[in-house]
Amino acid sequence: MKARVTVTLKTGVLDPQGKAIEGALKSLGVAGVESVRQGKVFDIELSATNKAAAETELKIACEKLLANMVVENYRIDIA
Amino acid sequence: MKARVTVTLKTGVLDPQGKAIEGALKSLGVAGVESVRQGKVFDIELSATNKAAAETELKIACEKLLANMVVENYRIDIA
Repeated sequence: MKARVTVTLKTGVLDPQGKAIEGALKSLGVAGVESVRQGKVFDIELSATNKAAAETELKIACEKLLANMVVENYRIDIA
Repeated sequence: MKARVTVTLKTGVLDPQGKAIEGALKSLGVAGVESVRQGKVFDIELSATNKAAAETELKIACEKLLANMVVENYRIDIA
C-alpha cells in the first residue's frame, strides 16, 4: 500500500527557507510570486493491506519522527 | 491564486535521506514500513488570476530553481 505524508509548517510559524526561495525567484525574474512556504513530502510504501491499519501506523510515524508537532502539521493520503 | 509544487526524486535515483528515515522508523518500532522516499513541497501564492499564466510562471520557477531536472520530477497543482 502506498501513502504520501505531507508535512507543512503551521500558519504563523516563520519560514526563512521559504522567504529565501521567494527572494531567489524574484531575483531570477519569475513574476507574480507573493509568498513561498516550504514543506516536506514522504512517499511511503507499507506492507499493511488494510487502510485503517496503514493510517494508524502512519500517524505514529508522523508523531514520533516525521513531523515536529509543535510547529508542523501533517497530512496523510493513502492511495 | 494558490499553488502547490511537489518535487520528488526520479525513480532509480538513490535516496539516502529516505533510507535513513526508513531505518529510523524501523528502530522506533513502526511496523510495516517497506520504503520511504523524501521529497519537497512548496506552497506558493501567486498574483496571477489566470490559471494558464500561473502554470507558465510555475514551470519557469521549477525549471530554474525549485527542481533539479537531472534527478527530480516536479508536479504543479493549482487550487
